[in-house]
Amino acid sequence: MKSQMTRRELIRWAGMGAAGFAFSHGLNASRLLGAAQTGKKPNFVIVFADDMGYGDLGCYGHPTIRTPNLDRMAAEGQRWTDFYVGASVCTPSRAALLTGRLPIRSGMCDDSRRVLFPDSAGGLPQGEVTIAEGLKEQGYTSACIGKWHLGHLPQYLPTNNGFDYYFGLPYSNDMDRVGGPQGREAFWNPKVEYWNVPLMRNEQIVERPADQNTLTKRYTEEAVRFIERSKDRPFFLYLAHTMVHVPLFVSDGFRGKSSRGLYGDAVEEIDWSVGRILETLRREGLAENTFVVFTSDNGPWLPYDQHGGSAGLLREGKGCTFEGGMREPCIMWWPGTVRPAVIHDLGATMDLYTTILKLAGGEPPTDRVVDGVDLRPVLFGEGSSPRDAVFYYRGTKLYAVRIGPYKAHFITQSGYGGDKPVQHDPPLLYHLGHDPSEKYDVAKDHPDVIAAIAKVVEQHRSELTPGEGQLARRIMKNP
Amino acid sequence: MKSQMTRRELIRWAGMGAAGFAFSHGLNASRLLGAAQTGKKPNFVIVFADDMGYGDLGCYGHPTIRTPNLDRMAAEGQRWTDFYVGASVCTPSRAALLTGRLPIRSGMCDDSRRVLFPDSAGGLPQGEVTIAEGLKEQGYTSACIGKWHLGHLPQYLPTNNGFDYYFGLPYSNDMDRVGGPQGREAFWNPKVEYWNVPLMRNEQIVERPADQNTLTKRYTEEAVRFIERSKDRPFFLYLAHTMVHVPLFVSDGFRGKSSRGLYGDAVEEIDWSVGRILETLRREGLAENTFVVFTSDNGPWLPYDQHGGSAGLLREGKGCTFEGGMREPCIMWWPGTVRPAVIHDLGATMDLYTTILKLAGGEPPTDRVVDGVDLRPVLFGEGSSPRDAVFYYRGTKLYAVRIGPYKAHFITQSGYGGDKPVQHDPPLLYHLGHDPSEKYDVAKDHPDVIAAIAKVVEQHRSELTPGEGQLARRIMKNP
Repeated sequence: MKSQMTRRELIRWAGMGAAGFAFSHGLNASRLLGAAQTGKKPNFVIVFADDMGYGDLGCYGHPTIRTPNLDRMAAEGQRWTDFYVGASVCTPSRAALLTGRLPIRSGMCDDSRRVLFPDSAGGLPQGEVTIAEGLKEQGYTSACIGKWHLGHLPQYLPTNNGFDYYFGLPYSNDMDRVGGPQGREAFWNPKVEYWNVPLMRNEQIVERPADQNTLTKRYTEEAVRFIERSKDRPFFLYLAHTMVHVPLFVSDGFRGKSSRGLYGDAVEEIDWSVGRILETLRREGLAENTFVVFTSDNGPWLPYDQHGGSAGLLREGKGCTFEGGMREPCIMWWPGTVRPAVIHDLGATMDLYTTILKLAGGEPPTDRVVDGVDLRPVLFGEGSSPRDAVFYYRGTKLYAVRIGPYKAHFITQSGYGGDKPVQHDPPLLYHLGHDPSEKYDVAKDHPDVIAAIAKVVEQHRSELTPGEGQLARRIMKNP
Repeated sequence: MKSQMTRRELIRWAGMGAAGFAFSHGLNASRLLGAAQTGKKPNFVIVFADDMGYGDLGCYGHPTIRTPNLDRMAAEGQRWTDFYVGASVCTPSRAALLTGRLPIRSGMCDDSRRVLFPDSAGGLPQGEVTIAEGLKEQGYTSACIGKWHLGHLPQYLPTNNGFDYYFGLPYSNDMDRVGGPQGREAFWNPKVEYWNVPLMRNEQIVERPADQNTLTKRYTEEAVRFIERSKDRPFFLYLAHTMVHVPLFVSDGFRGKSSRGLYGDAVEEIDWSVGRILETLRREGLAENTFVVFTSDNGPWLPYDQHGGSAGLLREGKGCTFEGGMREPCIMWWPGTVRPAVIHDLGATMDLYTTILKLAGGEPPTDRVVDGVDLRPVLFGEGSSPRDAVFYYRGTKLYAVRIGPYKAHFITQSGYGGDKPVQHDPPLLYHLGHDPSEKYDVAKDHPDVIAAIAKVVEQHRSELTPGEGQLARRIMKNP
């Protein structure tokens, strides 16, 4: 291997990023597909699960959770194996998805408080352009149904960020704790009244505490109604489920039904919800004109034992920059347009931003750095992903970088182990192709790869202007 | 939960073993299928991989190994999530598959030597009735192609155990070490000449050392030729690949081609091989009359680092009685007869014995205990698996027992960690549905389950007559 290796060369050398390879997989590869050219703007649905792990779906290998609707969606569409979120915890991950930008740019990350809390005074800055705002310019109507967590004060709510409609919780369902046993005990047999979380419609609280037992069901019903009432114009539905974040709740029809216990019940209700959405799109004749993506905001919350999910063979989970924290299940579906395949190219939630805006006939803003790339070549089966790097931030610090199959860890730290960050110089180097579980450091064999990654980091830093931090401000302390 | 719980009740209570549930999964469940009633005896093909882990196939969630042929086979057939081998190492596992009996009954296990070696004087006892012998009575022709490992002295070879034809290695490909670097070093860049293993045709050595680079390819070509020349009478093909046991070898067309390194190359060549077999069956018009099963002999050999596989989210690997050692990928295929589904019922290689003999119109022997059960109800989509227990032996000792979703560990020990066995009284108890990774001992919450399992163990022991040990005898020491 030569020492003057560029990013592109690194990727070519390793044989990654070859969409042609992925398409040769083809359970359904014989189906002849192309880009939609109906002249009608496509609809968009993003279903975002909370804290669901890489290994929690049947089609990602889970042995006891049954996800027939997601498995079918994967067989009819694209199942991505190397798809990333913008952060390993909730608030920054959601900011990345909705703005197409690393949270460090929008200021939606911090080193003291990792997410927004009920006493937070901050939220998504007005200057950020969300997918919903970008689509509004293209004539879309948008709804945010589910968990928001980008600021609960009025100016930060979905309806002030491009969404025409909002129904859901403004933050995580384990916040506003008001009763029940101490510590994690409250989660093992959770009751609605232990958490005083508000349920909102647009800018009003309509229920408090929210009856979390029926949240997945009610979100789904709201989503179905939004699709039904929006079908005559292009729409964007952002369905961000509160589940499967602890405390886990399910409606009566799912309680005790899965082989995986309460966690499995909750995943299976999410699977049901996805089935309902796709069925609605089919029934309304919208399936061929709607791009649907399913993914999760970050990895499984491992300290919650059997109430947390599984990252499968990936290392660690939520809260850290190992793969289990930031690589997610991702399924993309659009019958007749998204070419069915298993995709091994790199993708990220930020890319959904850019891809969706372009599919709608728009463009991402040009007055700022947008990290998302255009995944349409992969969706259409016409080329490979333009994404060649993944930046793994924890708070405001860059912990790791992936280029092609190689991932360099400059700093490591477990998600919730209470350990201090450990600096690595030279970085730990894992080959994620050969070693997806990040077990075998190959740094000493590949100084040239480390040098190439160092250059990428240098360039990244030279182009980086951190945004003003939004997560540390508190209502009480800084009124 | 009542204390007088029977095995059946345990299973019903936990909602396991419900084939109806599995069939409702159905990517292809709408396809109306029934048992083959052509009047012609069906053919059988068992493809047995070596040391392949639960997590190593695309359809079991591996992110970088591409297995399009096996994934397609799974989509067209049944993918089993809870399928077991009879032992966590090679020789006893193969004995269990071919005799339908736990190795403790045939004597094909031992506590000092876990498998047969080139200096072994023992082998599969003449009194055992192999699948091939049982099928011979039904007019079948049979071939064993690949690794045998049930005795290399003439009287133990496949041709003296019911097979009309044999082509392959008599034991593991890492035996007869004659050169190369010390210890594991020889495996990192393996060369054919480091291992003086013989390649045999029927009872003759035809090549020594075997050119391991082309073994997968040559086994496949032999298998295809056997199918082509046997197509006018019922046949049984036992294709027991030498790969992906270390040292890893691949033919030129696969070397350096996978994203998973040499191990992935070897798995992808096995996948190619399966594709060739199914393609041959289709081309010869035999697909609708041939029952094909793919599985592996035991879990991944973890001490071999990146040259060993992955058990996915299961605990540990080859050599131990945690799930990673004995639960395997298993795909069953028979277009028009095996009803496509993901199957969560319990199954085992020993059940293939009983199921195949019955499908052929025969019966397992009645003069001995046969551990295999008849899986036809599951294959046909007409009922659930009759298997309600899994016995996890290590050598001659019963380490663990699974009943329904519960697994009790009486003894634990890592596969190759060098640790001593640890006794547990009460046993460790894991709920494999809630906790497939065996992390959370729930023994104290379920004394009744432990009591029920103790009864099962008591009954098992009362019916057990251990066979005379075959693995300790050596040619030199006991000539």
